[in-house]
Amino acid sequence: MTILERNDTGAIAHLRLNSPERLNALSDEMLAALQEQFDNLREDSQIRAVILSGAGKAFCAGHDLKQMTAGRQSEDGGKAYFADLFNRCAAVMLSVRSLPQPVIAQVHGIATAAGCQLVATCDLAIAAEDTKFGVNGVNIGLFCSTPMVALSRNIARKKAFEMLTTGTFIDATAAEALGLINRAVPASELGTATTELAETLAAKLGAAVKIGKQAFYQQLEMPLEQAYAYTGDVMVQNMMYRDTQEGIAAFIEKRAPDWSQ
Amino acid sequence: MTILERNDTGAIAHLRLNSPERLNALSDEMLAALQEQFDNLREDSQIRAVILSGAGKAFCAGHDLKQMTAGRQSEDGGKAYFADLFNRCAAVMLSVRSLPQPVIAQVHGIATAAGCQLVATCDLAIAAEDTKFGVNGVNIGLFCSTPMVALSRNIARKKAFEMLTTGTFIDATAAEALGLINRAVPASELGTATTELAETLAAKLGAAVKIGKQAFYQQLEMPLEQAYAYTGDVMVQNMMYRDTQEGIAAFIEKRAPDWSQ
Amino acid sequence: MTILERNDTGAIAHLRLNSPERLNALSDEMLAALQEQFDNLREDSQIRAVILSGAGKAFCAGHDLKQMTAGRQSEDGGKAYFADLFNRCAAVMLSVRSLPQPVIAQVHGIATAAGCQLVATCDLAIAAEDTKFGVNGVNIGLFCSTPMVALSRNIARKKAFEMLTTGTFIDATAAEALGLINRAVPASELGTATTELAETLAAKLGAAVKIGKQAFYQQLEMPLEQAYAYTGDVMVQNMMYRDTQEGIAAFIEKRAPDWSQ
Repeated sequence: MTILERNDTGAIAHLRLNSPERLNALSDEMLAALQEQFDNLREDSQIRAVILSGAGKAFCAGHDLKQMTAGRQSEDGGKAYFADLFNRCAAVMLSVRSLPQPVIAQVHGIATAAGCQLVATCDLAIAAEDTKFGVNGVNIGLFCSTPMVALSRNIARKKAFEMLTTGTFIDATAAEALGLINRAVPASELGTATTELAETLAAKLGAAVKIGKQAFYQQLEMPLEQAYAYTGDVMVQNMMYRDTQEGIAAFIEKRAPDWSQ
Repeated sequence: MTILERNDTGAIAHLRLNSPERLNALSDEMLAALQEQFDNLREDSQIRAVILSGAGKAFCAGHDLKQMTAGRQSEDGGKAYFADLFNRCAAVMLSVRSLPQPVIAQVHGIATAAGCQLVATCDLAIAAEDTKFGVNGVNIGLFCSTPMVALSRNIARKKAFEMLTTGTFIDATAAEALGLINRAVPASELGTATTELAETLAAKLGAAVKIGKQAFYQQLEMPLEQAYAYTGDVMVQNMMYRDTQEGIAAFIEKRAPDWSQ
Repeated sequence: MTILERNDTGAIAHLRLNSPERLNALSDEMLAALQEQFDNLREDSQIRAVILSGAGKAFCAGHDLKQMTAGRQSEDGGKAYFADLFNRCAAVMLSVRSLPQPVIAQVHGIATAAGCQLVATCDLAIAAEDTKFGVNGVNIGLFCSTPMVALSRNIARKKAFEMLTTGTFIDATAAEALGLINRAVPASELGTATTELAETLAAKLGAAVKIGKQAFYQQLEMPLEQAYAYTGDVMVQNMMYRDTQEGIAAFIEKRAPDWSQ
C-alpha cells in the first residue's frame, strides 16, 4: 500500500491521499510523495488535468501532530526540523500552483488546517455537501499561519480572520458562497462531478490551458499596467501556436478543430 | 452609420457599440473609435457620467477573429500586428480606468472574452437578467489572458479560474453574486436603471467624484500605510475645494448646497 | 462623563464611543481618546479581546463636520489642520490593525463615512440587522477617500465603487453578504453575540492569537512565495512556545491543555 495512490485515466491523473488511519495527514512521507508526484506530473505531457482526493473519512486533517511532537526530541527542541517541514510543505503548495496542469481538489469529510490550505491552494475544488472546513490550529495553540496564506487569497478577509481566530468550522455551502470552493454537490455525486470537470479541462487545448494557468497567478501579483503588458505578450505567444490558428479557423468555418495535441 | 454612437443627454454621455452584425467585436476600428471618444471625454468638463452599451443582440463578443486571422498574412505571421492589437486594447481598458468620469456598462445579450473584460473594467455595471458572461477563448485554443486581468480583480479567484479554463458561461444573477456586475435587472428595465444610476452620479459634485475615482484605483495597488498617506492628501485637497466647503456648510445648515459646478 | 468609556470584564475590554449627541463623531477628542486606549491596550497583557461599540442611536457617523468647519478659520484655510487630522485618524485605524488583541466592532444604528471605515478596519464585526452602512461623503462634496482604503480591502470593488460614488446605504444583510461584517443579528441579540465572540477569542492561547493576527495582515501584502517564507518562520516561532507544545500534547492525549497564560 502506497501513501499516495496515482491512477491515470486517459489524460487525467487522479492522486489519492492514502493514509486514512491518520486522516491523510501531511506527514513527512506524504509531503515527499506529493512532491515526487507533482515533479513527475510537471514533465508528463500526456496528463492534462489532476484530481486530488483522500481515502477514508477525511480529505486531509493537516499536519501530523504526532510526528511533529516526535521531532521535538532533537537538541534544538525541533526548531530546525519544523523550519524544514514548513519549507517542504510550502514547496508542495507552490508546486500545485506552478504545475502546468490544473489541479482539482475532490473534498469530503473534513479539510482542516493544512488540509484546508490544500483545498484553497488547488486551482479548483468541488466538495461533498457535508464536508467541514476549518483552520482550527488556534484551538491547540498553533495558529494556522501558513494555511492562512492560501485561505486569505480565496475569501473575504473578515471571514478568514474569524475562521482563523475562532477555529470554527464551516460547511460546504458556506465554503462555496465564500469562494473557497467552486461548488458543493451531494456526496454521492462527488466523484462524477470532479471527473466531469477534469474531462472538460482535458478536452481543451493543453498548451492554452498551460500558458493560461501560469499567467493567471503571475498577473494576480502585478499592478494593473504591468499585468496588461505581461498578458499582452502571453496572448501574442498563444496566437502563434499552430493549434490556436487552427482553433480560430475552425470556429470561423463552423467546424471542429483538428488539433495536433 | 458610425461604429460607435455617442448621444449626450445633459451631463451624461451614452456610447453605443454599433457593429451588431459582428456582435460589436473590438475590431481595430472599434478600438480606435473607443480610444478617440475616451480621449474626448477626458477633456469634456460638461460630462459627469458615461454609459457604455451595445446595439443588437449582444453587448460585445470580444475581439474580431476574422480580422485577426487576416492579420496572419504578414511576413511574421501576424506577430507584430497582434502585439500592437493587444496594446491598443489594453490602452482602451486603461482609459476607462483613468477617465475622470465614472463609466457604467449597460450589458445585455452576451459579454464574452474581451467583451466580458470590458464589463469587468467599467467602474459599474448593470445587466439584463438573461445576459450570458464568459471568458471562453479557451474553447478555440486562445486563453483569455488579457480579459482575466480585469476579471480576476473583480471576482474570487477559483470562480475566475473555472470560467477561464472551462469556458462556461454564467448568467447575470451569478455575475451579481460574484461581484462582476452591480446588479441584474429585467431586460425591459435595463435602460432606465443605467440612466438613473448615471443621473445619480451626475448630480454629485463632479470634482469630488473625479478625485475619488482616481484615488480609488491608485490606493488599491498600495500597501495599507502608503494608501492612507496618499488618500489623506487626497482628503485635504478635497476639503480645500470651494464647493466642498459649501457642501459641508449646507449640510450643517440643513439646506441644499449652492455648487458652482 | 468620558467621551470613550472602557469597561473590562475578565480578559475582554469593552470600549464604547460616548458622544451620542454627535452620533459618536470622530472628533479630535474622540480620536485622541481612541489612540490613548489603543496605546494602553497594546501593553495590557491581561486583555485578550476588545469590543468597540457606540452609545446612543448610532455606532459612528464619521468625522465631526462642525469641528472641521471651525478648523477653516486658520490662515491656511485649515489645510495644516486637516492634514494633521487625517494623519491622526489613519494612526487610529492602523492601531486597530497593529493591536495584539483582536478588535470586534459591535455595530448598530448607522455606520457612515469614517464610521464605516472603523467597521471595515476592525478585525471582526457583528451588526444589528437594522444597521445602515454608507460612505456617503460624496453627497456633501467630500469623497470618502480614506474610508475607501478600508472598505475596498473588505468587499468587491464594483460594490465599493457604487457605495462611494452614489452615497447609497446598505443594510446589515447586504453588508454580511459582501464581507463587510461577519454577521447580522437581531438588535436584541447584538450585545450577547459580540460578547460570546469575544469570549471565544479570549479562551484561545493569547500568544497564538497575537502572532497570528500580526502575521495575517503582514502576509496579505506579500507576494505568495514571500508570504510562505514569512509565515513558515511564524509557524516555527509558534511551535517553540511552551504552551503550544502543551496544547498539542493535550490534543494527542485527549485532555484539556494546562496553559500558563
